[in-house]
Amino acid sequence: MPVIEAHLLQGYDDADKKRLAEALTDASLQVIPAQPEAITVLIHELPKAAYMRGRAQRDPAPARQDPVQIVTGFLTAMEARDLEAAEGHLAAGFTMHFPGTGPMHKLSDLIAWAAPRYQFVRKSYDGFDTAVSGQALVVYARGTLSGAWLDGAEFNNIRFIDRFEIEHDLITQQDVWNDIAETLRAGET
Amino acid sequence: MPVIEAHLLQGYDDADKKRLAEALTDASLQVIPAQPEAITVLIHELPKAAYMRGRAQRDPAPARQDPVQIVTGFLTAMEARDLEAAEGHLAAGFTMHFPGTGPMHKLSDLIAWAAPRYQFVRKSYDGFDTAVSGQALVVYARGTLSGAWLDGAEFNNIRFIDRFEIEHDLITQQDVWNDIAETLRAGET
Amino acid sequence: MPVIEAHLLQGYDDADKKRLAEALTDASLQVIPAQPEAITVLIHELPKAAYMRGRAQRDPAPARQDPVQIVTGFLTAMEARDLEAAEGHLAAGFTMHFPGTGPMHKLSDLIAWAAPRYQFVRKSYDGFDTAVSGQALVVYARGTLSGAWLDGAEFNNIRFIDRFEIEHDLITQQDVWNDIAETLRAGET
Amino acid sequence: MPVIEAHLLQGYDDADKKRLAEALTDASLQVIPAQPEAITVLIHELPKAAYMRGRAQRDPAPARQDPVQIVTGFLTAMEARDLEAAEGHLAAGFTMHFPGTGPMHKLSDLIAWAAPRYQFVRKSYDGFDTAVSGQALVVYARGTLSGAWLDGAEFNNIRFIDRFEIEHDLITQQDVWNDIAETLRAGET
Amino acid sequence: MPVIEAHLLQGYDDADKKRLAEALTDASLQVIPAQPEAITVLIHELPKAAYMRGRAQRDPAPARQDPVQIVTGFLTAMEARDLEAAEGHLAAGFTMHFPGTGPMHKLSDLIAWAAPRYQFVRKSYDGFDTAVSGQALVVYARGTLSGAWLDGAEFNNIRFIDRFEIEHDLITQQDVWNDIAETLRAGET
Amino acid sequence: MPVIEAHLLQGYDDADKKRLAEALTDASLQVIPAQPEAITVLIHELPKAAYMRGRAQRDPAPARQDPVQIVTGFLTAMEARDLEAAEGHLAAGFTMHFPGTGPMHKLSDLIAWAAPRYQFVRKSYDGFDTAVSGQALVVYARGTLSGAWLDGAEFNNIRFIDRFEIEHDLITQQDVWNDIAETLRAGET
Repeated sequence: MPVIEAHLLQGYDDADKKRLAEALTDASLQVIPAQPEAITVLIHELPKAAYMRGRAQRDPAPARQDPVQIVTGFLTAMEARDLEAAEGHLAAGFTMHFPGTGPMHKLSDLIAWAAPRYQFVRKSYDGFDTAVSGQALVVYARGTLSGAWLDGAEFNNIRFIDRFEIEHDLITQQDVWNDIAETLRAGET
Repeated sequence: MPVIEAHLLQGYDDADKKRLAEALTDASLQVIPAQPEAITVLIHELPKAAYMRGRAQRDPAPARQDPVQIVTGFLTAMEARDLEAAEGHLAAGFTMHFPGTGPMHKLSDLIAWAAPRYQFVRKSYDGFDTAVSGQALVVYARGTLSGAWLDGAEFNNIRFIDRFEIEHDLITQQDVWNDIAETLRAGET
Repeated sequence: MPVIEAHLLQGYDDADKKRLAEALTDASLQVIPAQPEAITVLIHELPKAAYMRGRAQRDPAPARQDPVQIVTGFLTAMEARDLEAAEGHLAAGFTMHFPGTGPMHKLSDLIAWAAPRYQFVRKSYDGFDTAVSGQALVVYARGTLSGAWLDGAEFNNIRFIDRFEIEHDLITQQDVWNDIAETLRAGET
Repeated sequence: MPVIEAHLLQGYDDADKKRLAEALTDASLQVIPAQPEAITVLIHELPKAAYMRGRAQRDPAPARQDPVQIVTGFLTAMEARDLEAAEGHLAAGFTMHFPGTGPMHKLSDLIAWAAPRYQFVRKSYDGFDTAVSGQALVVYARGTLSGAWLDGAEFNNIRFIDRFEIEHDLITQQDVWNDIAETLRAGET
Repeated sequence: MPVIEAHLLQGYDDADKKRLAEALTDASLQVIPAQPEAITVLIHELPKAAYMRGRAQRDPAPARQDPVQIVTGFLTAMEARDLEAAEGHLAAGFTMHFPGTGPMHKLSDLIAWAAPRYQFVRKSYDGFDTAVSGQALVVYARGTLSGAWLDGAEFNNIRFIDRFEIEHDLITQQDVWNDIAETLRAGET
Repeated sequence: MPVIEAHLLQGYDDADKKRLAEALTDASLQVIPAQPEAITVLIHELPKAAYMRGRAQRDPAPARQDPVQIVTGFLTAMEARDLEAAEGHLAAGFTMHFPGTGPMHKLSDLIAWAAPRYQFVRKSYDGFDTAVSGQALVVYARGTLSGAWLDGAEFNNIRFIDRFEIEHDLITQQDVWNDIAETLRAGET
């Protein structure tokens, strides 16, 4: 049943508006279990001269990039070991936690950490979830890992989940959980 | 800058409206990085006689329960081994995945699975994230585990993350990742 | 797709608002063939202190009565030959046209006109339509007549349609068409 | 006093919007006898990217044609005996009722029915009323007939009323009442 | 033509809303010379739970007192030489300018200044104007003075205008102009 | 906290809309002492076909000129003794009151009145206030005068205030107060 109206300054492109309308629909669904076709979103765009806040005209803040695209861009670059491209997605002060590590800040540290663990790893995605935490956007990527151990034996179907925090279109934090150790222990037994 | 208006049928309590306004604020923040004080949400509530869709008057769908409360209610009951209370939060067809297990459907199976692993476990939470996936609500609970191994040795500070899907205020799916195996392997070395 | 908002002064009861929402839905359907479930009407009611036009506060005009109820009240009273009740629905200057008559202004004239035509007549309704013409409401009542001729022979299934104009909740004009003459001619042949 | 806002997808031309604003004004007048200058209608048009229902973007349904134009187009073609043009306005399954006929489905049947009745007939219109009945639009055309009987004698000033139902811009039903039989009987007496 | 909607938190009384609607009407008139009856103001009041700014619920700021009432309260107390009541309307740091004086801060200074000028003075008002200057409200009171000179001779019809600035419902500044000196000079000639 | 929406016909330029949004902000501030950054104004502009009042489409009334610009234009022309330009700002029936004069209607009368008083005068402005009085706009201009007496002696820092009423972009009334007489008396003593 809800009708949701958003009043915005002009300056957002069609993809931005689509993301916004989807996010507003989902926000409504968090509280009101309306039939989907009953949720309507209307976006009213105002030219700069038609908007005033605090008795001052304003410029629209540039839209945030789609956070799932930021994350997949980063993860794709990492799989390809294109560290330069991957670092382009990282904020100053970026921190990551992998299973069994303390906080790491450099992608080269991660690569050094992974070197004695496996030859390579590929991610296959089951889904992404997007949330908001304060000013940060949160993206969860989950799915399964496949790749090869150091001895060349292949592995696959190992569950993983990554949590990313994004501010100003840059990743500030990555937290990773997976079943690699579980798999290794199972193999050892 | 955004001003967001939501038009609803009357019948939602103050806590529902607060959750809705927060969710709409966050939805806006996903796309527009406005200064927080610049995002305004207005909820207009309409008595039943003042709303019509499809030329028919409607009753408001009862609000969804706060999904974080559902999840913490379930997890608290599980920690207390109050299986009856915990099962009250589960949908028919509930499925859970823990590290190294196939899908399980009964809490008693989970307890049997855990029995040879540790005496008990406590969860300390670092945060919750809420998302929407189709008609389901998704809650992530993350933090650290503490407890005692079977030999009585204590453990703590083991990272975990749980993902829950909720429909009709019942949990349909739980996926769990943690560093227990990583910790055990480290201990074995 | 349309979402229609109406802003009104408080003072209209639930039946008034239902009629208004139906009329707004139908108004939208006159131009936009949206799927019915996609038309939403929102009525915002404002206390007197929250509304101003021309820098003056206003009182709400009392709602018009349902024009179909006015018409059926009138027609029911006429069938029962309760002329006093029927006249209660008529405006000063009321005019009626029946097949083959000039304008008549008094119900007693109508009864005198009908006397040499049939003993009595009953109306069975197939439907009502409501329209607006300037400041007047227009109601069409259509269906079939049954009754008895002067010789006692019964008739039925004779099509009729009445058109009424209503102002200030009183009928100003009635125009009647029917197939009585056609039926009589067919009988004569 | 009412202020009526309609939110629409872009795609309706100025004439469509004028018809819609008139219909919304009239809808308001059906319930609230406000002074005419006190009824305000505001139409907000939204580009496709600014509208979402059921988490999906939508295309605007093409506007319905003005139903009075459809009816006058049909009646003009009939007067001119341009059956091809007239049939272009008819839906499959079109049904018509004239005084003293059963249901007819073909215009050629109507012409055959009229042939022994009069040489020709012309309609002069006193007014049109438009209503909505479910998904159908209803148009009433009323006025007077003139023409020539089979013997060449002229007639005029015979009251008629036609009721049309229109769906998908095509006429599904025509019901006709008039005083022809009354006139003939009066002539016979 | 303008329709103006204001969305407010609940908590303003009918007099506050009337003042607000008048002020919004006047604001519109400053730019758009619409016929007065064509300006509509709608005030939508929202309970606290239905409003959020910056992801926080808010309490409504108490309404400002009618600034004209503050000014007339002050001036009436001054005429009655009720200095205590008059000082109740003054902000810390209050400053006043009278013709021929430097800035004064105490009402007793004003009385001392007036003592050698006249026995008493009464104000008769021709009108008040209200404006806004930054966060301050500005009230102009204008009219004519009457009273008695020190020698007992009466005077009247001397034009004056007072300008007041008001913040937090207290007068911060008073500026006075009048024709007393002009009148005295004319008398001397 | 207030959010103010204004619905207008298209046809106002950016400067008009800025003035309107400022005036609406100030109107809100007259009653609600919100923090400035919490007042949002949204102007929705409607093409002619999307607006109807009294079942008629309308043309937008041309925007009023900025009344402060009218006043400063007039005062600048007067200082330059460009009487033709100054008179272009005056309505038929224009009336002015200066200290010690009765009503004057012609600028040439004013100049004759001033001739025995001073050689010339310049205005330095401390501020302008704008108000509304019925259909008239009111502008107050205040500041100090400097110039030269007839004997060539200079003066300055003499306080003045002018009040103007404006209708249809023309000045209908000017009322002037200042401390010239006070200054002259002080000089005489």
